[in-house]
Formats: sequence, C-alpha cells, structure tokens
Amino acid sequence: MTNRSFSPAADTLDEIARIVGDKGVIKGDDAAPMLTEWRNRWPGDASLIIAPANVEEVAAVVKVCAHTKTPITPQGGNTGLVGGQMPTRGEVLVSMRRLNRIRDVSPLDNSMTLEAGVTLAAAQEAAEKSDRLFPLSIGSEGTCQIGGVISTNAGGVNVLRYGNTRDLVLGLEAVLPNGEIWNGLKRLRKDNTGYDLKQLFIGGEGTLGLVTAASLKLYPRPIEQLTAFVALASPEKALQLLSLAQAGPGDVTSFELISRDALALVLKNIPQTRAPLADDPPWYVLVEFSSGEKNALGGPVETMFAHALDDELITDATIAQNEREAHDFWRLRHSMSEAMRSEGAQAKFDVSTPVASVPAFLADADKAVNAACDNARIIAFGHMGDGNIHYDILQPDGMSLNDFDDARRRIEDAVYDVIAKYDGSISAEHGVGIMKAGEIALRKQPAEIAMMRAIKRALDPDNIMNPGKLVDTE
Amino acid sequence: MTNRSFSPAADTLDEIARIVGDKGVIKGDDAAPMLTEWRNRWPGDASLIIAPANVEEVAAVVKVCAHTKTPITPQGGNTGLVGGQMPTRGEVLVSMRRLNRIRDVSPLDNSMTLEAGVTLAAAQEAAEKSDRLFPLSIGSEGTCQIGGVISTNAGGVNVLRYGNTRDLVLGLEAVLPNGEIWNGLKRLRKDNTGYDLKQLFIGGEGTLGLVTAASLKLYPRPIEQLTAFVALASPEKALQLLSLAQAGPGDVTSFELISRDALALVLKNIPQTRAPLADDPPWYVLVEFSSGEKNALGGPVETMFAHALDDELITDATIAQNEREAHDFWRLRHSMSEAMRSEGAQAKFDVSTPVASVPAFLADADKAVNAACDNARIIAFGHMGDGNIHYDILQPDGMSLNDFDDARRRIEDAVYDVIAKYDGSISAEHGVGIMKAGEIALRKQPAEIAMMRAIKRALDPDNIMNPGKLVDTE
Repeated sequence: MTNRSFSPAADTLDEIARIVGDKGVIKGDDAAPMLTEWRNRWPGDASLIIAPANVEEVAAVVKVCAHTKTPITPQGGNTGLVGGQMPTRGEVLVSMRRLNRIRDVSPLDNSMTLEAGVTLAAAQEAAEKSDRLFPLSIGSEGTCQIGGVISTNAGGVNVLRYGNTRDLVLGLEAVLPNGEIWNGLKRLRKDNTGYDLKQLFIGGEGTLGLVTAASLKLYPRPIEQLTAFVALASPEKALQLLSLAQAGPGDVTSFELISRDALALVLKNIPQTRAPLADDPPWYVLVEFSSGEKNALGGPVETMFAHALDDELITDATIAQNEREAHDFWRLRHSMSEAMRSEGAQAKFDVSTPVASVPAFLADADKAVNAACDNARIIAFGHMGDGNIHYDILQPDGMSLNDFDDARRRIEDAVYDVIAKYDGSISAEHGVGIMKAGEIALRKQPAEIAMMRAIKRALDPDNIMNPGKLVDTE
Repeated sequence: MTNRSFSPAADTLDEIARIVGDKGVIKGDDAAPMLTEWRNRWPGDASLIIAPANVEEVAAVVKVCAHTKTPITPQGGNTGLVGGQMPTRGEVLVSMRRLNRIRDVSPLDNSMTLEAGVTLAAAQEAAEKSDRLFPLSIGSEGTCQIGGVISTNAGGVNVLRYGNTRDLVLGLEAVLPNGEIWNGLKRLRKDNTGYDLKQLFIGGEGTLGLVTAASLKLYPRPIEQLTAFVALASPEKALQLLSLAQAGPGDVTSFELISRDALALVLKNIPQTRAPLADDPPWYVLVEFSSGEKNALGGPVETMFAHALDDELITDATIAQNEREAHDFWRLRHSMSEAMRSEGAQAKFDVSTPVASVPAFLADADKAVNAACDNARIIAFGHMGDGNIHYDILQPDGMSLNDFDDARRRIEDAVYDVIAKYDGSISAEHGVGIMKAGEIALRKQPAEIAMMRAIKRALDPDNIMNPGKLVDTE
C-alpha cells in the first residue's frame, strides 16, 4: 500500500458540502471523536466530514466523488478495532449517523428494515417492542451501528445458535461506487436468481459501496434462559461438554471458555466482582441455554451437570438462580478487555480454528508464545462454541515496552503460524481494515487475494470506496 | 444470448481425454442420460463427456480448457429443473460422479467434508452414522449431488429451521477458470479476512468455477419429531398459525401449505393415498416440530392446537401417531409433482415473497391467472414458512395445447408482475440456468445485472465456465 495522500479539489468539497447542507457538515468538537479510534492507533485525516440526511444525499455525494475520483471512508459508531472506519489520507468521511430510521418491523415476517445509522442496541429494542429477538449481541452494542455491523460481519456471543451478522441479513440497500442506489432490500428467505450480491457487502468493510439500510431476520424471543458457570480441567473437557450440552434441552446460545488466569485478572482489576465457584480450576465455561418453553431447562440441565460430574467431565458447576446472578456471570466475561487495560502493553489475537481444534491450538500456541517471549502472561478466553478464541499476551512484569514490542512481532508470527497449522483464521470477528491488510495478503492463498482484487477492481474500478482497507489494489 | 455453437479443436479434446484416461471418458449408453434432463426441454449437445477421477484431473482439464478457451459445463446428478447442468452448444461436459469420497466427518466439530459427486442421500447417511444431522432435504436427494446442491443453493423442506444450502456450507474447494485449485475448505464458524468468496460459488451454477468439495455444517439429531396435518380456512390463518407454532415448543422444522385442489389431485392420481382429515377445508398445513428432548412435543402441541381451535384459527388437526403416519402425511406433500403429470401441460412457478405477503400474493395471483386464462386450474402448495410457493397452473379441460401455450405466456407475465408487486423472487429454489436467464436480465434491477456481469467477467474473463447460464456476458 502506498501512503500517498488524497487532496480533493476545493470545488469538489464545496459541491459535496452543498449537497448535505450546513447540518450535514461536521466540524470542530463534533468532528474530533470521529477522527480518533479508541486505541489511537490510526490517527484520522479527512478532507471533509459529512453526515448525509438520507440515502438520496449519500447517492448524490457518491456521484460527485465518482466523477472526481474522490475517495470515501464510511463510518458508523467508530467502534471498529482494525481501523476500517478511519480516513487516514484525506478521504471524505461519510458518517451514517443521520440515517437512523427504523423503516419497518414485521413480526409476522420475522423481519425488520433499518437504516445504517441505527445503533445495534436500538435495533434490539425495536425487535423486542414487537415481541421478537434480534439476536446479534456484541460488547459495543450501545454505540456501534447497523451499517458497521454489516460491513464487518460482526459476531458476538450468540453466534453458536443464530450465526454471524451474515446469517441475519435478508437484504441490503447500498450506494454503489458510481452513485447508483442499489435496492436489494428484499425480505426473502429463498431467492435463487443469481449471485448473492449482498454477501460481498457483508464483511466488505465499505470497499465496494456504502450500506445505507438493511432488512434483518428476527426470531421468537426465548421464553426461558439459563446461565451456568462451570469448572473443568481442560479445553478438551470443555469440547466434550459442548457436545453434551448441544444434544441436551433447548438451544445452547453461548459457550464461552475462560482460563483461570483470565478470570483472576478480572477479579483483581474489576471492582465488585467475585468468583462464582469455590473451586479454582484451570478452566471455566460460561454456558447459556435458551428455550421456547417455560420450566424446560432447570431440571434437565441439572441432570446433565450431575452426569458430567460423575463422568469427570466437569469438576463443579453453578446455575444462576436469577437474572442478577446471570448478569454477574456475564459481567465477568464482558470485563475481560477492561481488566487487561492496566496490565501494560498487549499482543491481542482474535483468531479461530475448527471448534474441535481449539484445545490443540491452545496447547500449541502456549508453547509457541513461551518460546517467543519469556514470562509471557497468556490470557485465553472466548467463544469456544464457534472456535473463536481471544488470545491475548500481556507485557511480562519487568520487561520494557521496547523489548515487548520486539517480542510482540515474534509472538504474532508464532501464533499466526499455529493458526495456519489448524487451517484457522487470523481475524475471526474484527475484520481486516488497515491493521491486517498486509498480513492477509501474505497469509491467504494467492488465488484468494487475486479473486478479491479482481472483484474490487470490477465493482470499484477507480478505487474510491474506502481505499487501502481490506484489500489493496493500488 | 447468441446461439453459436462451440467447436473445440480435435487435439484439445484428445488432450483432455488423455488426462482423464479411458475410465474417464463417457460414451454411448452411459452418455445418453447425461444429455437428457427429465423434462427434455434442453437437448444436450457436448463435444466430449468426461468424469475426472479427482480434483487434480479436474484442474488439469480446466487448464487445457483455459488455454484453448474451451467451454465447460459441470454436471452433478442431472436433477436440475432449469437446464443449468446441460451442455447445449458443444461444451465439454464434466461429470463430478467419480469425485465421491467422504473425506472427513467430525462430530465434535459438527462438520463434514465431502467431494462434489457424493449424493445428498449419502451425505445425510454419513452424518447419521456419526450421530449427527445434515438437515438439507429435497425430493431428488437420492440422485442429486453435493456439487449441484451447492451450485444451485438448494432449499427444500427444512429451510425454516436450518436455512438453505448457503447456510450449511463452511468451506469450498473449487477449480477456478484458470485451472488453479482453490482450497477454501476451512471449517470455521467465524472468519472475517476478506470477501466471503464461497458465497459467489454457492448458487453460482458453475459459472465461476467447478466446485469439487465442500465442508458442511452438521447439527445434533433431533430426539423427537412430531408431524401434524391441519385444516384451516385461509392462508391468512396459516400465517397466524405459523407465528403461534414458532413461539411454541421445540423447533418448527417444516411448515407446508397445501390447497384443497392440490390435495384432491394427489388423492385422485396417486395410489394408496387417503385424506388425513374428515373435514374438506380450503387449505391444509403440514407442520413438523423437532425437539432435542424426549416427550417434549406431544402435550404442548396438543394444547396449542386446542387453543387454535377455540380461537377459530384452525378447523381441525391430526397428529401422526407413529412414523408410518408421519410418512403418509409427507407422501401427500411429496407426490404433488407426480400427481400433476397426467393432467396435461402446466405453467409452473417456483416463487417467493416475504412470508407475511404469501396470503396477499396468492389472492392477487389467482385473480391475475384467471384474467389471463379461462378455467385455469390452480394448484398452490409449498414451503409457506419460507414464503416459497410452488404455484402451478394446469391446462384447462378442453383447451388445446396450442391455446394453452399462448395462455402460458400471459400467465407467466401476470404472475411475475404480482411477484414484482410483493418484491418477491421469480426463482426461489430452482435457480436460473438457461430457463430464466433472459427473464432475470429483464426483471432484476439493472444495477444488479451489471454487478453480476462485472463479477463474471472479472473471474472468468474468457467465459469458459458454463457459458449462457445464469448471467449472459456474450
């Protein structure tokens, strides 16, 4: 990737500003947070920041950009972790925050149609008001927006039962690189009339067009949920427990693995947390069951745990007795990133393997990390049910930041090599953005990179859509 | 689309024949059925028919074809309904039937990896042997093959719970138009490292490359299933019943709507069938529930039907008391096409709308058909839970075939216009192939056709992969 800056002509920027009007041009204090992402890794640099009021304004802006070959970076809630939402070379930043209408909720269809700037929390709420569930749930749901969630194919804690964002999208509306509005907002469960174009925009990180609205799947709300915290000896045992649980009552909606060290860090750094079990085993699992019936879970899950204890699959288990306890269990899981913040620098991984390979991956990765860095503090946790581990290495006590920066490069190579061994992914949830564009170009099969480039060139020949992110065609 | 024939040079065909050897060249009696599809609508015309033994042979063949710009048509079980599997202008026909290995079944991963030539029934069986469910189920499952199922994104009777083929594919292996083998057989539940390329091959009808193997999702086998036959007054009532059932016990795995006339035709033309209910209502629903627990369905479903009777949502219902009865109910549904065969010519539709629009679609379509053709006999049935209706019009008694052919064109325009009104699909399950390529080019948004063409040209610049199918770039 070159680092050349874009310098749109003044009259181009004027024309764009005229289209969105005074209310649509973002300046000063309002602009600053849009040019900074939370780890401050990729400083923002935009030639203009706008928030169009509707899809027609977006289309008119993109038409000007297409005509003048002016690059665009779309931005939702600015919660991305890989820089995909950041203009860094003078792009026009297009915020979707004013496209925030809920266009339609149809409980009989189990679908709703929302604009890109609706927050995920507002989307969940709209579904709930119609007695339906929109199952996507991620840490940033109060801030992140539907457009960003779609463009990054967000995952989260309910993927095991409901899939990733990709599985929840029925249709999309997008502004294409030539400024045309594509109305792909069909709400169909079956449609075999050609290439499924929406799939390219889902997880496409804004490189093929700007997602302006989406039709999403809804589900019946679970009548009962049961949350349990389980102690066990190893990831292998956790894998067997997963299989047992999935054959049991209701649906397993979450299955989160947490290492002893990960839990200890939360208990140490997050106020008002306590260990759910007296036991201090090497591994924990936070498991959540859901059912469409009342009183369908308690008895069968207790019986299942009793058998699992007898069979030495688990060493202890506790079932949340009320919502408050369930919330406390989940808080331990959700506080993981927060708990690490005061522990110095980190090498963070968001990786996945086939579900059954998670135990072997963890064993191999631990070995590789220890070989690459003395006294590495390894914090392993994540969505084991999806094979998705958040594997983080903390700066060792007494190691300088400089030395850890060197070690970090060795650690990254080592972990990515282990991922390759298990045919895994170096970005399970967070995407590619700026952060991993170089790495995936090296690590994916050349045929895949060639196909990605061919698609990008075919659909965005002037490379005006979020250039430099995801796939590099410069 | 032009109708020009392809005439590969003799030495090109010789070279291809040498690659696959004597066992790989199909001739004579063995070849005939591969050049005829079941409705005999698109007579086959191939310059050579081959069945490579493995992916390396496929790749070597495609390399020769790429070099010489020789077009290829892939074929699975030859069960397609729109001609996608038929070489009609002298293409090289590549049968996948010898790529029939089950490479891996991993119950802990809930995944299996199969070659393209494995039949769907064999795939289901392989899953069952490992105590897992591969939920895809369609009428042709004994004959159709995994490669074809993927290339047409097959749907079937379990889509309501498990999704279409698209939702069941974890990874693909394919031979690309340049002869390179793409190993995309990852078995990951989460992977956000670029455009999800496999999505283009799923439902791509062989126009971007040849699918040679796939990693597929498995599910726990349901412990209990319950099948019921329900009588009701209207599709509106059926829609409400669907909503009620989905909020009830277990999972609703099938929800099939059948009109009185459709059932009557089966009872008339299929031996050893009988009406499941004494009542003769205008509409029936065949509904199937599944549960991961024993004895979880009977009581709650009976209670639900009792409430539905009280609320005048349904007029009668019967629950299959054993597998035999459940099988008999399903036989009524599965015999529908067979029952029509002796009733003269037909105008057949495989359409979808949003689920909640099915009742309005049926009302409007009936009106439109009656306006286009006197005494039309309308047979409506299908996967109402997915909004997918098989809507068939039988040649009226006493109308000549010639007159019906004229009427058929009017009927098609009329039904497709109603589908457009409800933002539906003119091919919900069966795909585009030769049959609907012209129609979708007219009826899809021009921006969509333009994107499809751009993708096809970018990935298959010489148009050697199943030319003339799905999208026309000639």
